Amino acid sequence: MALDRLIEAIANKQNPTVAGLDPKLEYIPDFIREKAFARYGKTLEGAAEAILEFNRGLIDALCGIVPAVKPQCAYYEMYGWPGMRALHDTIAYAKGKGLFVITDGKRNDIGSTMQAYAAAYLGKTNIAGKSEEAFGSDALTVNGYLGSDGIRPLLDVCHAEDKGIFVLVKTSNQSSDEIQNQTLEGSESLYEVMGQYCEEWGKNLPGKYGYSGVGAVVGATWPAQLKELREMLTRTFFLVPGYGAQGGGPEDVAPAFDSNGGGAVVNASRSILCAWQKQNAAPEDYAKAAAAEAERMRDAIVAKTGKIRLVRR
Amino acid sequence: MALDRLIEAIANKQNPTVAGLDPKLEYIPDFIREKAFARYGKTLEGAAEAILEFNRGLIDALCGIVPAVKPQCAYYEMYGWPGMRALHDTIAYAKGKGLFVITDGKRNDIGSTMQAYAAAYLGKTNIAGKSEEAFGSDALTVNGYLGSDGIRPLLDVCHAEDKGIFVLVKTSNQSSDEIQNQTLEGSESLYEVMGQYCEEWGKNLPGKYGYSGVGAVVGATWPAQLKELREMLTRTFFLVPGYGAQGGGPEDVAPAFDSNGGGAVVNASRSILCAWQKQNAAPEDYAKAAAAEAERMRDAIVAKTGKIRLVRR
Repeated sequence: MALDRLIEAIANKQNPTVAGLDPKLEYIPDFIREKAFARYGKTLEGAAEAILEFNRGLIDALCGIVPAVKPQCAYYEMYGWPGMRALHDTIAYAKGKGLFVITDGKRNDIGSTMQAYAAAYLGKTNIAGKSEEAFGSDALTVNGYLGSDGIRPLLDVCHAEDKGIFVLVKTSNQSSDEIQNQTLEGSESLYEVMGQYCEEWGKNLPGKYGYSGVGAVVGATWPAQLKELREMLTRTFFLVPGYGAQGGGPEDVAPAFDSNGGGAVVNASRSILCAWQKQNAAPEDYAKAAAAEAERMRDAIVAKTGKIRLVRR
Repeated sequence: MALDRLIEAIANKQNPTVAGLDPKLEYIPDFIREKAFARYGKTLEGAAEAILEFNRGLIDALCGIVPAVKPQCAYYEMYGWPGMRALHDTIAYAKGKGLFVITDGKRNDIGSTMQAYAAAYLGKTNIAGKSEEAFGSDALTVNGYLGSDGIRPLLDVCHAEDKGIFVLVKTSNQSSDEIQNQTLEGSESLYEVMGQYCEEWGKNLPGKYGYSGVGAVVGATWPAQLKELREMLTRTFFLVPGYGAQGGGPEDVAPAFDSNGGGAVVNASRSILCAWQKQNAAPEDYAKAAAAEAERMRDAIVAKTGKIRLVRR
């Protein structure tokens, strides 16, 4: 199952982190932007071209270090269809470099529509009998507010195509409390119920290393909940955003991991993409600065988790 | 505020319905598909071209009847970036015909990323000082699982650009119970809490007719909850999916409306798009069949709600 491929890549690289590709224009060095604007003008196409070149440089520099990248859809959609073409090309380029690609789209809908999203991001689109890949990533983040019949179409595609999903359980933002921490009649919190659904949905996609194809998103900004959920959800792999710029540190994410240094992958976006600005590096060295920051992050986290061991269960 | 424009269009056309543009390839007449495939092959581009031509015909036929259309993102994303170009062109074409466009994307994310979605679908994208519209619709459906800081960036854009949002409260699908009907400590259901947040968020976007710029999605398949929520959420306009093919009828949606026949707009997609197939019409008459079905739906609902009156409050 799909998350096995991610788990193996993490062990191979001894690096439980993923680089978020959230390419705001202001993160991109001038020399890349100016080249794109010279060709396409200050248009959606120009912005999309700049993003794609920025991403390619990052992927080249990061592909030996991180096991996975996570493009955030919103930062491509804001540049319209040219942005979505840059998303497609970024995913294809990252996969070509051997990276596992998690598309961060937080998609959600009722069953028949979820089939369309599953085809878009994980499976294939049937065009009058011919199969085409629309975006073709390895995993997709999803929002479970609609319940099981919004999730099942994804499970079918994950099974057929060896892909995975990550369901929002406890998000990294401050006001995630408002809905996710609502206390239910039985004294559980809503995020706990969502977590239990992840375990349930995951039974359809068992994995070699004990973790299913249904992961959970749990923010680095909530270490107590990370610890609680890690103990409660023994079959659910965690995608942990909120590290770095959002405030989570190595000690905060440590509880996300199991005793083999497995069970989780930590995302950082801004701190890696903007490393060249923070380090006052030459713009031409943006990718080198990103790689150095990715190594620093890896080392800081592995210092807490210890060696990552692949253990079948 | 934006929903005022929708409310006025509903009253002008005496039609509280919206046509969902969920253009699956199998709904599209052969003569349109074959023309597109002849030019682009059975590719994502070919499918996107067929969808766009199908939509243009529908919009031409429907623009005198319905006040609004609701393209469902998933059915465009499944055709990759060419599909997203067809979404853009569909939105532009519909707006050109005077229709209010609700993009059904159910987007959700933390604050900074939500800004990007808000720019993508409601506002403008800043490209090194130049403003470009990425998709430019009038309203967007969103998922509130992340809480207020995932909604606030939308409110800012809605305020600045005269746009609106619809937050998922109680969705039309069978298993929406699993999460949305969880009973909380204080004996409320989660969907009620989400509804109350809609009222709260809407205070920032007051409207002439008493309804704010923050609407709620409540499924036609849950008439009891529609009635309860209509009484409870006096400032929140409803977008009601699940009519027609999903099972909701005129009597089911009647409780969504206030005593002036206002307060809600009912969506139907499949029953309108596939009307030509169900009526055994000639494929060339697909748009005419869609228009007849849209009129039938309008008449059936207005028979329950009575004349729609614009009342300031």
